[in-house]
Amino acid sequence: MQLHPVARVESSLRDLADAPRQGDEGAPDAWVVFDESVRAALADVKAGDELILITWFDRADRDVQKVHPRSDTSRPPTGVFSTRSPDRPNPLGLHRVTVLAVDDLRLHVNNLEALDGTPIVDVKPVIGDISDR
Amino acid sequence: MQLHPVARVESSLRDLADAPRQGDEGAPDAWVVFDESVRAALADVKAGDELILITWFDRADRDVQKVHPRSDTSRPPTGVFSTRSPDRPNPLGLHRVTVLAVDDLRLHVNNLEALDGTPIVDVKPVIGDISDR
Repeated sequence: MQLHPVARVESSLRDLADAPRQGDEGAPDAWVVFDESVRAALADVKAGDELILITWFDRADRDVQKVHPRSDTSRPPTGVFSTRSPDRPNPLGLHRVTVLAVDDLRLHVNNLEALDGTPIVDVKPVIGDISDR
Repeated sequence: MQLHPVARVESSLRDLADAPRQGDEGAPDAWVVFDESVRAALADVKAGDELILITWFDRADRDVQKVHPRSDTSRPPTGVFSTRSPDRPNPLGLHRVTVLAVDDLRLHVNNLEALDGTPIVDVKPVIGDISDR
């Protein structure tokens, strides 16, 4: 079960201390730069698409199983499967974004709370009502 | 970037041909059986929780980059990043479920379209409005 990066984040967010906790809490626009090897997989993504990006939190601690939610020490330690903490056994992140523009292998997206350089391992469309599939 | 399974699916779904395309299209209830090593991470999950399970589609073809959406050959081949096909470079699946019951390291969940034996690599809460976080 080996993951290979398909893209990397290019962002002005370079420091964990600056990152918002979720993308809709003030995260910047960012670029997602894909590898040439996945050009065909990316071919139908277009501006306006709503996507879920799956990241690999390469700076996470995989041995952490309990955290204070949102690092708020007034909240009791909580199992990470009940939180969105990046520290978890398999440090995968889910990020819902809208595509603002496509430039060849680069996607410009809004509201991405991932740090510069973060690997992206998968991209999926947001799926709506059954009738739209 | 090596994933380790944290749980496995126990389901009556044993054959790809029987699996619905999405969990809300007639998938059965199933059990998710966690490894003892992640007991602390699971500790706060309870009946009624809405979760996103991330699976590893261990029977997927990682070399596929274009598919007919929903295997409908009347639809043009489409890049897999614009589809939910299990065949993709990193075969991760997202499954939104509700926890029906918890029995120690076992969760009973509804609407899980994953096959029996599928590895689960992460579990996250569905996050709602900013005010609820």
